[in-house]
Amino acid sequence: MIKAGVVGILGYVGEELIKILARHPNIKMAKLCDKGAGLPKPMREIYPDIFQISKLPCENLVLDEVAASCDIVFLALPHVESAKIAAEFLKKGKKVIDLSADFRLKDANIYENWYNAAHPHPSLLKDAVYGIPELYKDEIENASLIANPGCYPTTIILALAPLLMAKTISVDMSSIVVSSNSGVSGGGRNFAKLYFEKEHPNHKPYNIGGTHRHIPEIEQELARIAKPTQPLTITFSPHIIPVERGMLSDIYINLTEKIEADGLREIYDDFYKNKPFVKVLPDKKLPEIKNVVNTNFCEISVNVDKRTDRIVLMSAIDNLIKGAAGQAVQNMNIMFGFDESDGIL
Amino acid sequence: MIKAGVVGILGYVGEELIKILARHPNIKMAKLCDKGAGLPKPMREIYPDIFQISKLPCENLVLDEVAASCDIVFLALPHVESAKIAAEFLKKGKKVIDLSADFRLKDANIYENWYNAAHPHPSLLKDAVYGIPELYKDEIENASLIANPGCYPTTIILALAPLLMAKTISVDMSSIVVSSNSGVSGGGRNFAKLYFEKEHPNHKPYNIGGTHRHIPEIEQELARIAKPTQPLTITFSPHIIPVERGMLSDIYINLTEKIEADGLREIYDDFYKNKPFVKVLPDKKLPEIKNVVNTNFCEISVNVDKRTDRIVLMSAIDNLIKGAAGQAVQNMNIMFGFDESDGIL
Amino acid sequence: MIKAGVVGILGYVGEELIKILARHPNIKMAKLCDKGAGLPKPMREIYPDIFQISKLPCENLVLDEVAASCDIVFLALPHVESAKIAAEFLKKGKKVIDLSADFRLKDANIYENWYNAAHPHPSLLKDAVYGIPELYKDEIENASLIANPGCYPTTIILALAPLLMAKTISVDMSSIVVSSNSGVSGGGRNFAKLYFEKEHPNHKPYNIGGTHRHIPEIEQELARIAKPTQPLTITFSPHIIPVERGMLSDIYINLTEKIEADGLREIYDDFYKNKPFVKVLPDKKLPEIKNVVNTNFCEISVNVDKRTDRIVLMSAIDNLIKGAAGQAVQNMNIMFGFDESDGIL
Amino acid sequence: MIKAGVVGILGYVGEELIKILARHPNIKMAKLCDKGAGLPKPMREIYPDIFQISKLPCENLVLDEVAASCDIVFLALPHVESAKIAAEFLKKGKKVIDLSADFRLKDANIYENWYNAAHPHPSLLKDAVYGIPELYKDEIENASLIANPGCYPTTIILALAPLLMAKTISVDMSSIVVSSNSGVSGGGRNFAKLYFEKEHPNHKPYNIGGTHRHIPEIEQELARIAKPTQPLTITFSPHIIPVERGMLSDIYINLTEKIEADGLREIYDDFYKNKPFVKVLPDKKLPEIKNVVNTNFCEISVNVDKRTDRIVLMSAIDNLIKGAAGQAVQNMNIMFGFDESDGIL
Repeated sequence: MIKAGVVGILGYVGEELIKILARHPNIKMAKLCDKGAGLPKPMREIYPDIFQISKLPCENLVLDEVAASCDIVFLALPHVESAKIAAEFLKKGKKVIDLSADFRLKDANIYENWYNAAHPHPSLLKDAVYGIPELYKDEIENASLIANPGCYPTTIILALAPLLMAKTISVDMSSIVVSSNSGVSGGGRNFAKLYFEKEHPNHKPYNIGGTHRHIPEIEQELARIAKPTQPLTITFSPHIIPVERGMLSDIYINLTEKIEADGLREIYDDFYKNKPFVKVLPDKKLPEIKNVVNTNFCEISVNVDKRTDRIVLMSAIDNLIKGAAGQAVQNMNIMFGFDESDGIL
Repeated sequence: MIKAGVVGILGYVGEELIKILARHPNIKMAKLCDKGAGLPKPMREIYPDIFQISKLPCENLVLDEVAASCDIVFLALPHVESAKIAAEFLKKGKKVIDLSADFRLKDANIYENWYNAAHPHPSLLKDAVYGIPELYKDEIENASLIANPGCYPTTIILALAPLLMAKTISVDMSSIVVSSNSGVSGGGRNFAKLYFEKEHPNHKPYNIGGTHRHIPEIEQELARIAKPTQPLTITFSPHIIPVERGMLSDIYINLTEKIEADGLREIYDDFYKNKPFVKVLPDKKLPEIKNVVNTNFCEISVNVDKRTDRIVLMSAIDNLIKGAAGQAVQNMNIMFGFDESDGIL
Repeated sequence: MIKAGVVGILGYVGEELIKILARHPNIKMAKLCDKGAGLPKPMREIYPDIFQISKLPCENLVLDEVAASCDIVFLALPHVESAKIAAEFLKKGKKVIDLSADFRLKDANIYENWYNAAHPHPSLLKDAVYGIPELYKDEIENASLIANPGCYPTTIILALAPLLMAKTISVDMSSIVVSSNSGVSGGGRNFAKLYFEKEHPNHKPYNIGGTHRHIPEIEQELARIAKPTQPLTITFSPHIIPVERGMLSDIYINLTEKIEADGLREIYDDFYKNKPFVKVLPDKKLPEIKNVVNTNFCEISVNVDKRTDRIVLMSAIDNLIKGAAGQAVQNMNIMFGFDESDGIL
Repeated sequence: MIKAGVVGILGYVGEELIKILARHPNIKMAKLCDKGAGLPKPMREIYPDIFQISKLPCENLVLDEVAASCDIVFLALPHVESAKIAAEFLKKGKKVIDLSADFRLKDANIYENWYNAAHPHPSLLKDAVYGIPELYKDEIENASLIANPGCYPTTIILALAPLLMAKTISVDMSSIVVSSNSGVSGGGRNFAKLYFEKEHPNHKPYNIGGTHRHIPEIEQELARIAKPTQPLTITFSPHIIPVERGMLSDIYINLTEKIEADGLREIYDDFYKNKPFVKVLPDKKLPEIKNVVNTNFCEISVNVDKRTDRIVLMSAIDNLIKGAAGQAVQNMNIMFGFDESDGIL
């Protein structure tokens, strides 16, 4: 049994992490921490509906104590703060899975531009492994520090990777447009509270016109896959839909030749054939959030609009699971040699 | 007082129409019809929460009776059936507002390709006026037959018209991509019932890859405005969001020059300055369905993604009001010389 | 056309009142008032989805101006404040319908005990007519001041009145137990906001053990009908159900003889036979809030539990309509000689 | 590890059972069965969001196979059918927890009167232990056959037991009135589907006037506790509230002396002091379904209406957990000597 700690259990992602870890066959929950008035407090007062950990306390973070009792630490914390704490645990030889954005961007300058803060530990960026198990399993096996991907990037990278790697299909790399919809939990607990207080049921875009912080992450990772000759930039439009969880992205990319959807779908089937959590949908089927909510699955459909010679990809996940806590546990399973689906299937 | 009849009151659109007409200061409800077992039946048994018409019956349609007692007839019927009945009323000298798709497409061959049925009265197509009051007020004033626009086309045409008419901004007409979200009422009552029975809350795309029947309507109307040198085709992706009503469209179009959003927004402000139901939003504001649901308003925002030189337009309406019944009444107000906002403001 | 004013339009009840009055065939909306920063403000900014009054402003209350332009004033204000303003309008010869609790209790001492405040105008209590049109139509016709009943009392009084007046059925007056469920709008806007922010979907009791302020109102009115030989007291348990509007009460009373439900139902049918808004349900049918929400109807069922010799009455209304604004307009219709159902059917 | 089987996994209760058993530290899921076309089928196709059992199949029931591979069998089946299958497993020496109504009533004639069917195995009724662990732990330890209680009876028996056992408080046993509210899952999957298709959000009573099948179960168990001198009958009114799960009961009983709530609450505190799943609420606190949904807890409040000398008890549970699957697992924990809260806390 591996001993795990979670720092930051009060948010949506932390809650989801402990739900999964509590039922994981190879994990012993060793430390649950957050900060704030009223701690330590029994978990059963915080989450009375999470089973198997109800007798543990949620404690204020004391780094040495957590390090002494855990083999791996999950961080579900705000950016900047997360990098500082991650560095401490790494120094003590612990494995770290960071669910913040702190280790996703490889270039500290780009980080500073988008997050309005100097990176606290730029020297660690090169060691962090971007944790999409379907693409980087070998690196994840040997990693000490996982940069757990953002939710929107997960939908987009999984949807585009087979196409961009195929190289046999000629597309216009400057034509990528993404329109994404997320449940309100994507905005965090305070956002969700305000939403349900003032707006529900609403549907609305936000951060339109190239301003969402997931953009540099998506562009970095797509460029890493596609190795384009020119800088790869995308138009990305996120929206809120009136559900607590679930995420669906439309991805548009122009073909520079005529192709059939069937051939393209074969490339996808082949790419994901041994990946337990990605389902490439057959012809005529389209992703729906109800099929993936509360699971670690990603549904992807591959469509060709022959009237306009444009590929239309769609992918759906649960933003809190495959888009956060589930993918983190999938990474951990790989790091420790467990079955990739332990605890999440 | 003008005497109005509604044929097809059992669906969502018919219900919304009688709600509006019942409170209209210049309208006397003369006939309410549908077909099916159990009619005639008092309206208060069908819609106990619609006021002022509760003592009227819903009758089985008898053309001569409706024609004898009405100045104008609204048709909220399935396509093909609607054209047949419209022709009869026109013959008897009645004004007709048709809320089906039957008179929207000018080319009977295109109609047949997309609706899988020969048009029953192709000779009437040239007389029908496409009823977007913000664009075609003069024609509407003199029309006998209004083709009331589809809901998705309304959002897209209102959002693109000022740009396409401006001609001072250089765009790539082949680059238009539209991603739209609609409340479940857009699919009709049976669809909505099944949705709430089996899926709610869900979010899902449908008719992806160039198959939705609103595509030829959108392309026809955009081409009429833009007069492009080559056939104008668009990629259009509709989705269902987990609310009963409300619609929001993202529209993407590539610039072939660099521009500022402010200048573009001025063009829009100017275009819509005397139009009571279109609100061009200021910088930083984005449309939300909660702002337009239960109203006849359309909110539009104008954004430029300078990283990719792409215009991102967004527009929101209530699909049952500005996207159907409200726009129908707006058209009627213009036809009869009433204040354009009577009954809908 | 009668000119009407509404003071207190920002709450749920005020909103519902102006929705009804705006569509009333004999009413001209003359003044809409509330108080607070930002007034005057156009109604279309406050309630964009209420039609026909969107061009009116919501003004800060100036008593003389309202009195000068209105024949009748509706008050949707907090208690105590309402009585003070009502007295001013009465002095100026205006008719007043007060939707607060201020004129419902006939005894100023009981008012003070339950509302923790001295009554500002105890001398007006004897003139106020308790506005249940099904019971007190004659008095309402001649009233200047209507005490519009509370929502829970409306369900309970309408359900018990035929039984208590019948006197041919022998019941134990000390055995009345009432369990009621209300939509969250019953608690007002702030309550509803907090509810949807923190609790939804929840079901919970409140004010249990004889502490709800509607108790003295219910007991006063039941005693007025039943004229019991001993003080009539009831046990009353209100609950919140997870819907915005709708109310259902169970009322239990012990029989001191054996009876059949059919005979009892006949008494009810007879009692309500010319009352347009009360529906006595046939055998086997039970009230449901979905049948009355958004209407002024009250559904009542009459059941006898023969195993325990207990009558079980159930009644359902829309708490904002028959339980507040709709009943207020019904009272106004009677005061001015309009059809009792104008604007509410 | 004990090997468990569940027969009847397609309904709400079966689903909840496998969710709990899948995370239970001492249980190995050995067999999952139901009947119908399309079986066997992998569990991940039936419940993709239940973890840890996704690789098991759901099979058609073959009694010998289940008996061969399980130590205990849970039956989540319709009545009559359940008793037949239970008898077979008992014959083969298996322990059985029956979640149907088949073994709850001790008198086969009463069973036949209320369920319109002869009991298939009346001789087993005397051996079945009524599984409320807070009352009958000793009997449960030694039982082979548990009659798992109904959801409404659980709320009512837990709320009344301390009072009825106390005997120091003088109450009128003929005065018990119960008004209960249940989430729609209480009616089963088909009921819930129809509800969401046609009614939601609704609130409505059903089976009023002494006709609900839980009445004889409640009366039998209350009489067993109170040992009244006369037959104990109750008035019971169930209602549906617009949520999927959660249940709250109001229980009214007349005092024949004056008492204080504090003294009564002490009796309750004392009665439930070592019972992990019953929370007696302090003064001023009332049960809410949101506090118990998704848990095995029961919240109880003890109130005295001093104006009417009536005790008002309220209790809330999750109808699918403490009212069904959770209580079943609690019973199993006791039967096998596990910690009473394993898997459900």
